[in-house]
Amino acid sequence: MRLSNYFLPTLKENPLEATIISHQLLLRAGMIRQTASGIYSWLPLGLRVLRKIENIIRQEMDKAGALEVLMPTIQPAELWIESGRYDAYGKEMLRIKDRHDRDILYGPTHEEVITDLFRKNINSYKDLPKNFYQINWKFRDEIRPRFGLMRGREFLMKDSYSFDIDEENARKTYNLMYETYYKIFLRMGLNPIALRADTGAIGGDLSHEFHILADVGESAIFYDKKLDEVFENNSTKTDFDIQSLQKIYATADDLHDPHNCPVPADQLVSRRGIEVGQIFNFGLKYSQALQASVLGANSQKIYPNMGSYGIGVSRVVSATIEANHDDKGIIWPEALAPFAVMLINIRNNDENCNKACEEIYHKMQNQGIEVLYDDTANSLGQKFAVADLIGIPKQIIVGPKSLNLGMVEVKDRKTGEKKEINLSQI
Amino acid sequence: MRLSNYFLPTLKENPLEATIISHQLLLRAGMIRQTASGIYSWLPLGLRVLRKIENIIRQEMDKAGALEVLMPTIQPAELWIESGRYDAYGKEMLRIKDRHDRDILYGPTHEEVITDLFRKNINSYKDLPKNFYQINWKFRDEIRPRFGLMRGREFLMKDSYSFDIDEENARKTYNLMYETYYKIFLRMGLNPIALRADTGAIGGDLSHEFHILADVGESAIFYDKKLDEVFENNSTKTDFDIQSLQKIYATADDLHDPHNCPVPADQLVSRRGIEVGQIFNFGLKYSQALQASVLGANSQKIYPNMGSYGIGVSRVVSATIEANHDDKGIIWPEALAPFAVMLINIRNNDENCNKACEEIYHKMQNQGIEVLYDDTANSLGQKFAVADLIGIPKQIIVGPKSLNLGMVEVKDRKTGEKKEINLSQI
Repeated sequence: MRLSNYFLPTLKENPLEATIISHQLLLRAGMIRQTASGIYSWLPLGLRVLRKIENIIRQEMDKAGALEVLMPTIQPAELWIESGRYDAYGKEMLRIKDRHDRDILYGPTHEEVITDLFRKNINSYKDLPKNFYQINWKFRDEIRPRFGLMRGREFLMKDSYSFDIDEENARKTYNLMYETYYKIFLRMGLNPIALRADTGAIGGDLSHEFHILADVGESAIFYDKKLDEVFENNSTKTDFDIQSLQKIYATADDLHDPHNCPVPADQLVSRRGIEVGQIFNFGLKYSQALQASVLGANSQKIYPNMGSYGIGVSRVVSATIEANHDDKGIIWPEALAPFAVMLINIRNNDENCNKACEEIYHKMQNQGIEVLYDDTANSLGQKFAVADLIGIPKQIIVGPKSLNLGMVEVKDRKTGEKKEINLSQI
Repeated sequence: MRLSNYFLPTLKENPLEATIISHQLLLRAGMIRQTASGIYSWLPLGLRVLRKIENIIRQEMDKAGALEVLMPTIQPAELWIESGRYDAYGKEMLRIKDRHDRDILYGPTHEEVITDLFRKNINSYKDLPKNFYQINWKFRDEIRPRFGLMRGREFLMKDSYSFDIDEENARKTYNLMYETYYKIFLRMGLNPIALRADTGAIGGDLSHEFHILADVGESAIFYDKKLDEVFENNSTKTDFDIQSLQKIYATADDLHDPHNCPVPADQLVSRRGIEVGQIFNFGLKYSQALQASVLGANSQKIYPNMGSYGIGVSRVVSATIEANHDDKGIIWPEALAPFAVMLINIRNNDENCNKACEEIYHKMQNQGIEVLYDDTANSLGQKFAVADLIGIPKQIIVGPKSLNLGMVEVKDRKTGEKKEINLSQI
């Protein structure tokens, strides 16, 4: 993509409305713009990151045998009345009346809709287990939307819902999702940590929150430093001993009691984290309420044991920036970078520079490398500032002096390390 | 994908609520289910088709230089008051009050939001032209939702919006979109036809509707049979003479006057079609109303000349089925088929059949061929009926008799043609 044709409205100054770093950088790097309070438009650069996150999640969910569906954003109130949550949910639910005065709502979550789909289409124990997922927009009418994507009103979620024949199988599915979540976040280049959690409004007795470790995280987290060892060299890890992992102490501060902590003080790590996912097993709560049963081998009625598993997809964008930035801008992990390479032509009125850049640009495109080519007439300082701000992992800098020697400069955005390499080596 | 693990709730009978063939087949083939009036959940098979349509559109829009963005589904009423459409739009707009009693709405279209994004981020003529597109859900609160996806309330659209410096350039963009739309529908394996159209509520003076020819189409269409010649061997066509194409007579019956038709009766073709897209040039209507101007070369204020271009993505699924089915079920064009191959094991308790099927299945998966493997214990008749119903282009049928001779049967869903081929030839 040529920057001169792109839409990348970067900002030099931090907008006043943004108080946390990810919100500031999302706006400054031209990734999102606010359309209404807590409601954002995704500009081309931001959308590319969102899609990368979606794709990693989709691949890992597919590998785990989950089936992708897509449920509507608008739901009928009846289903929520049936589950008993319609009145309980409160003002965060966006309640709507349609033109025939029927009560509908913009879904904040989809337990009811999926259970309805299940009961109308699956009748036999032979069709279990099933795990359905979707990646779709949800709405929660936050009283004070803030922190950009961190606490927005319209947000993108991956939510999935599992149906198992009994508790033992449901626990297996739960563990598979626990493992899948670790894989997903590690593949993204993030440092995830699973915390034993309360089940809250969703119900049930087993739940973990997934946090991304970040110095500026919203939550204080306490954990046994054994976990650091487990996740050393994390990105190469593909198998986990779930049982032992779940037994290692890790908790948010609301559940942490320093006086009764099983971990000795010198073994306890205190860090901060940003919640990006949560998994639940809630047993029969929805299958019973919505009468979603199947027939067993002896024609007995069986209520499936259910779980749900969420990832805040748009929130991951913010969390990634919180965990990966410096004072110049964003530093994307490779797996989530909107482009792999930023090609910077520092003299776009120099014929040699233009020619070399065009060659590099086409070569990379032909090899399927995603490259953003700064072919603009902007000043050198401006180009470098924008490149650092938007945080593409590798910068290839083409200038007349080096070029006369057949060289270009390659800069690593993360380390700042620069080296001259021969044109032919690219 | 193994059918035994999949979610494909096919139906033998036509559901009572479905009166047109595409709605019947979408339900019977287990592609969608209704969640509320005019609001559907997409099951795995249907979602795969929807994604194929999205991908073709995305690729062709990218090729045409359009930039993908994603605007929110929920919009503030203010923007519509500013454009003058808030009161005009009527009851099809889903109007909502949030918890602070502010007027918001579920977007039926996005001219206002994109123009707002433009005016806040683009200030110079040098940044023109720009063409933004998104693929996103919209809501129109139809008084009587019917015909399944054909006239639903929540529906998927590709909508794009162009900004040009003047009318001449806007016309060029319009023609590029006209050409791109033909390419998109031809790549899908459909027979598109562009009709000169009224601009209606969107405004402006230039518009074409794109219809898919189908015997059961909703609209009567009249056109000069020169068009048939133009589109013979259509799928191989990549360049169009837009100017001459737009001059050939083609119109819907509301604009057709048999007594004053410029085409002689023996040259006039009458067919039926389903509208799947519309393109508009509406000039300065929104850029002036929302004060979205840029500065020109001499610092003069210039209002960009705008156009918008829609494709009913979910509607294309229905239109494709209307145009491609027989009495046994759907016949997918290859480009939109949910899977390329259906592998049918007619004896899943026979060791040889299982072994051969597993080999074929893995071989195809390794080659990146999308295959749905019917490994179930269903009866032979049931397996064939389901395969024909869901309409995957090629069926590979593995049975013990042929297998003893080292052969399997390959059936073409469209022609019904069957041939025995050697296992090694697959």
